[in-house]
Amino acid sequence: MKVGIVGATGFGGLELIRLLKQHPEVNEFILYSSSKKDEHIQSVYPHLNGLAEGALKAIDHEKMPEQVDFLFSSAPTGVSASLLPPLLEKGMRIIDLAGDYRLKKQGVYERWYKKEPPERKWVEKAVYGMPEYNRENIKSAQLIANPGCYPTAALLGLLPLVTKSLIDTKSIIIDAKSGISGAGAVPSSAAHFPIANDNLQIYKVNRHQHIPEIEQMLHHYSVTKDPITFNTHLVPMTRGIMNTMYATVDEGTTEREIEETFSEFAEQHPFIRLSPQGTFPCTKQVFGSNYCDIGWSFDKRTNRITTVAVIDNLMKGAAGQAVQNFNLMNGFPENTGLQASPLFP
Amino acid sequence: MKVGIVGATGFGGLELIRLLKQHPEVNEFILYSSSKKDEHIQSVYPHLNGLAEGALKAIDHEKMPEQVDFLFSSAPTGVSASLLPPLLEKGMRIIDLAGDYRLKKQGVYERWYKKEPPERKWVEKAVYGMPEYNRENIKSAQLIANPGCYPTAALLGLLPLVTKSLIDTKSIIIDAKSGISGAGAVPSSAAHFPIANDNLQIYKVNRHQHIPEIEQMLHHYSVTKDPITFNTHLVPMTRGIMNTMYATVDEGTTEREIEETFSEFAEQHPFIRLSPQGTFPCTKQVFGSNYCDIGWSFDKRTNRITTVAVIDNLMKGAAGQAVQNFNLMNGFPENTGLQASPLFP
Amino acid sequence: MKVGIVGATGFGGLELIRLLKQHPEVNEFILYSSSKKDEHIQSVYPHLNGLAEGALKAIDHEKMPEQVDFLFSSAPTGVSASLLPPLLEKGMRIIDLAGDYRLKKQGVYERWYKKEPPERKWVEKAVYGMPEYNRENIKSAQLIANPGCYPTAALLGLLPLVTKSLIDTKSIIIDAKSGISGAGAVPSSAAHFPIANDNLQIYKVNRHQHIPEIEQMLHHYSVTKDPITFNTHLVPMTRGIMNTMYATVDEGTTEREIEETFSEFAEQHPFIRLSPQGTFPCTKQVFGSNYCDIGWSFDKRTNRITTVAVIDNLMKGAAGQAVQNFNLMNGFPENTGLQASPLFP
Amino acid sequence: MKVGIVGATGFGGLELIRLLKQHPEVNEFILYSSSKKDEHIQSVYPHLNGLAEGALKAIDHEKMPEQVDFLFSSAPTGVSASLLPPLLEKGMRIIDLAGDYRLKKQGVYERWYKKEPPERKWVEKAVYGMPEYNRENIKSAQLIANPGCYPTAALLGLLPLVTKSLIDTKSIIIDAKSGISGAGAVPSSAAHFPIANDNLQIYKVNRHQHIPEIEQMLHHYSVTKDPITFNTHLVPMTRGIMNTMYATVDEGTTEREIEETFSEFAEQHPFIRLSPQGTFPCTKQVFGSNYCDIGWSFDKRTNRITTVAVIDNLMKGAAGQAVQNFNLMNGFPENTGLQASPLFP
Repeated sequence: MKVGIVGATGFGGLELIRLLKQHPEVNEFILYSSSKKDEHIQSVYPHLNGLAEGALKAIDHEKMPEQVDFLFSSAPTGVSASLLPPLLEKGMRIIDLAGDYRLKKQGVYERWYKKEPPERKWVEKAVYGMPEYNRENIKSAQLIANPGCYPTAALLGLLPLVTKSLIDTKSIIIDAKSGISGAGAVPSSAAHFPIANDNLQIYKVNRHQHIPEIEQMLHHYSVTKDPITFNTHLVPMTRGIMNTMYATVDEGTTEREIEETFSEFAEQHPFIRLSPQGTFPCTKQVFGSNYCDIGWSFDKRTNRITTVAVIDNLMKGAAGQAVQNFNLMNGFPENTGLQASPLFP
Repeated sequence: MKVGIVGATGFGGLELIRLLKQHPEVNEFILYSSSKKDEHIQSVYPHLNGLAEGALKAIDHEKMPEQVDFLFSSAPTGVSASLLPPLLEKGMRIIDLAGDYRLKKQGVYERWYKKEPPERKWVEKAVYGMPEYNRENIKSAQLIANPGCYPTAALLGLLPLVTKSLIDTKSIIIDAKSGISGAGAVPSSAAHFPIANDNLQIYKVNRHQHIPEIEQMLHHYSVTKDPITFNTHLVPMTRGIMNTMYATVDEGTTEREIEETFSEFAEQHPFIRLSPQGTFPCTKQVFGSNYCDIGWSFDKRTNRITTVAVIDNLMKGAAGQAVQNFNLMNGFPENTGLQASPLFP
Repeated sequence: MKVGIVGATGFGGLELIRLLKQHPEVNEFILYSSSKKDEHIQSVYPHLNGLAEGALKAIDHEKMPEQVDFLFSSAPTGVSASLLPPLLEKGMRIIDLAGDYRLKKQGVYERWYKKEPPERKWVEKAVYGMPEYNRENIKSAQLIANPGCYPTAALLGLLPLVTKSLIDTKSIIIDAKSGISGAGAVPSSAAHFPIANDNLQIYKVNRHQHIPEIEQMLHHYSVTKDPITFNTHLVPMTRGIMNTMYATVDEGTTEREIEETFSEFAEQHPFIRLSPQGTFPCTKQVFGSNYCDIGWSFDKRTNRITTVAVIDNLMKGAAGQAVQNFNLMNGFPENTGLQASPLFP
Repeated sequence: MKVGIVGATGFGGLELIRLLKQHPEVNEFILYSSSKKDEHIQSVYPHLNGLAEGALKAIDHEKMPEQVDFLFSSAPTGVSASLLPPLLEKGMRIIDLAGDYRLKKQGVYERWYKKEPPERKWVEKAVYGMPEYNRENIKSAQLIANPGCYPTAALLGLLPLVTKSLIDTKSIIIDAKSGISGAGAVPSSAAHFPIANDNLQIYKVNRHQHIPEIEQMLHHYSVTKDPITFNTHLVPMTRGIMNTMYATVDEGTTEREIEETFSEFAEQHPFIRLSPQGTFPCTKQVFGSNYCDIGWSFDKRTNRITTVAVIDNLMKGAAGQAVQNFNLMNGFPENTGLQASPLFP
């Protein structure tokens, strides 16, 4: 297949290149960039010396459907809304890594993103690309809204409990921590090394745009429609997300039920791993891989469960999950090109 | 004054040396070490070249009361229980940075520390050294149990709300994150650079020994005696603690009350600073200083408050608070020797 | 093939597991460990959950030749000398990642390693596993002495110039910097996170055991037998080596000759990349890959060349180069299992 | 004294605030900023909450001489040349932390800085502010050109040897490594955390503007006028410089002479410390302090000396040395306000 990547010079784009480069079903890829067209990507990113041919191409709605068989869009949120519809109209299959097509309700999108929502038509057609909860729909989708990094870790740690009604959804608190690559490739003060190094920063307290994305999925699978508490921190590391999640356990729930629930969940899905009881995952144990590792502890004193989910934000939190969706959409085994072990240490 | 430091070669001890070196009322200090006696501390820690005279002295219950006027003990938890009583019996005034004398109930100590509790007599006499809540008792104390690092940040962020009954104590969840110096000076696998770097680790989930220390103080100031949820993470940075704390706000509590409560609290105490509304502190803004910086946000959607408190774990979380207590015990202005600005970046 | 790894729980061993796991010609591997036999490696290293089967096996000279077709030994230097000969006598083909078999002169080994040298017989048979300079010998070797991490980067940056007599070997100075994984998996004070983080340490000044290894190869390819200056630093990063190397350029040497020399070198070898003129590699651009990236600058003012070579110390500096040698010894394409792009950022 | 700081919002400016805040002879300081006038510095840098009063003031050549008794200028290089002369004409005493007034030859300035050189008059009057080599001139100077960060570490490690003719100046090679705060407060790609973290970068190879500054001083103290080799690296740490320096030792020089030379040097100057023989300083052992720590090793095999000098680039490499000069210019003890111990770990 010939595959295109829009926004190739961002961190999501770089990770897609890394993955598609070793994907056995992809024999060519074309990189698109609105800002750096005609440059060679290795002149910006020398780790790609010898690994990427041809110059970055400009985005061209006419030519793209002929140039490539499939498109990944890693443009910033807000850009996809105008960029993708003409391509979709021509029948292109697209995975969008931005936030534009994730929220089904336009009002919610406007409120949290402070942007014009995209066309209703494509929002409705877009499938939320979380294979563990949407595998069949993904297979036949034309447009995938690839999940956000934090929501991926949050939902994979919470949905197994929510779908079985083991916890009180009203009590959910998610304390999320991310490596700084999550902030993207554009330099900023909060990500300036002398500021970010040896520092822990909290940001967007109670107003992160991933809140409605998490709630949308939780509400889909629960009877109640409770709001959640969700906060985000910048940890001085390059990659990795850890979500530490708290919830009150419903009366009658036993530890065995919880263990079985997570255990089954891990068995059913190739990229979910459950930490042995009494142990908890660290972010580095999934570094560079598509795994989501989950650990949990029930505290009798408070009747609360602590669930810990870790991912590599650029992998299962972005490009890795996108390739997983790509595999499903094209009938390849789900883990094609994603079997590399985590890189440790 | 002549001051002694037991456990001078640990990180708490090193920080005490740094502070007492520039303390105008301390004209001499003697360093004690059970493991490295007769060595010179600068041969272990060359940053002290030219700054510390004399060899490390062995611990000697007979000589110590004559050698020094005041003692800081930074020995590991469990050691103080046997080390300090003979010195206390001779009338020495001591600040203990370990956990031994913090918990008033022996059964609680045993359960969480899995160690023999220290003598009841001195546990009862020990004063919990948190000046913001115990200033008068500290002044006249013979033995100070210097608070733990996590409890300091937790209590300074929560007690102002609890004492005014603004939050539901049953709902308190503390998600704590610490730099790795909190693990001490002895090398370990979790603190081995290749493992700890670019990694976020969670540890002692729901079983950290600081849980009963936090609860003891919360229960002292609240009507109810609810257990809390408290978890701890190792962040790849050297110093700093951030506690992100969640609680449901009691009905009728207004944002203005909360702001006034914290605002008054900051005005009354020299080392408490309140972040301007809508902003939140990062750990680096207190690096090397004795400040505890606090920020908060009330979320109408969930009726929960998020409170963020940051400290330097070796300063307000250990040696800095110890010197603050030392000042109070000796009638010096509370901030003597502690006025240095945070080191940033 | 069935492949064995001795010393599987060290960092070199872990990296071998990662690489062999995705090597298409390896269908099984057995992990040996003297210290942790019967344990499961994933209980020590949870990033391998689901990726490594069976318990760690004890080292057994009788059984090993039957259990595996090929052996990688990643035991510490000094252990191989006694561990490997009985296996070699039985005809096993072995790649040794330790220093034991690298130095041809026993006296030199003793002087720099302060250890008994290994048996002369196997020292003589051992082939120094640097494919760029020894490809043919490697193919038919029974025992490979896999090069040290620093020597790999040093020799790949210097030998192209030395073999063409473009620089004065008497003037060579190598200023080497390494990430801390080079210190191994055993915790130590210098690698303790609070000490190593935000710190730059120099060590073994003018007495590193890699000095004679570099000199042995340089002398092999030069007329003169000059000693070199070589110093090593610990950089607060997990992986990566950068050697900054200085030498006086021989009279008559032109910049064009230098460029052509490196350019040819890069063309001839699959894992050598030359940075475009005027640019210089950083360690991160080879992270997780087997590349050695080289840049250079000639300074007319001083008549000196500065050559910069970067590698991932666990890859081209250890396990990656070992797999490259394994491929050559078994007639597989040289880059089999080593094609993954660098992981960036 | 009332002291002014121009460029208060850069990292040099922040460090000056930290130091002057605790300086017993400074009772007031005024912060000037061309870009952020009327803002409060604590709104940009919350670590200064409660520590800095009044808004940032605009630069005003008329008012400044009346507002303050002394001026530190921490504006970027190139700005001082136009900013300072009008103030100097009015008799103000100024310490300039930028590079403008360091190089005595205008042609050299132009060649390396690619900027118009400042007025000859003030270049001639400017005194190079390195107390260890210029103490008497500093005392009576009106304008101090505060040394660059790299040159400070380079010269303090080399000049003691050069002034006694112990080394061959033609052979000098300086391999310099700096923490990333040296790149300043403005975000950039090379200092973007995801790029800089876990990475070692080399930059400005053989063309750093500190080369002529180092040579100017070396040539002043040596008979010969040889060019040096000097290269710079960005280490993933916030603060700290380590210069590893190589030189061939002149015939007849003994190790004892070298030891005595450095030993005397350290005794004569309050901020120079010599590491015990056989040991070498790390950058962290001077963190936050004004010390320059020096270690050395003579290698008989190559007849070369390796000298290692470490400083905190924002302290002895910038603001600390500036305050040291300020003390000398005003007749205060040289270490006033600079006695704080290094912060370790």
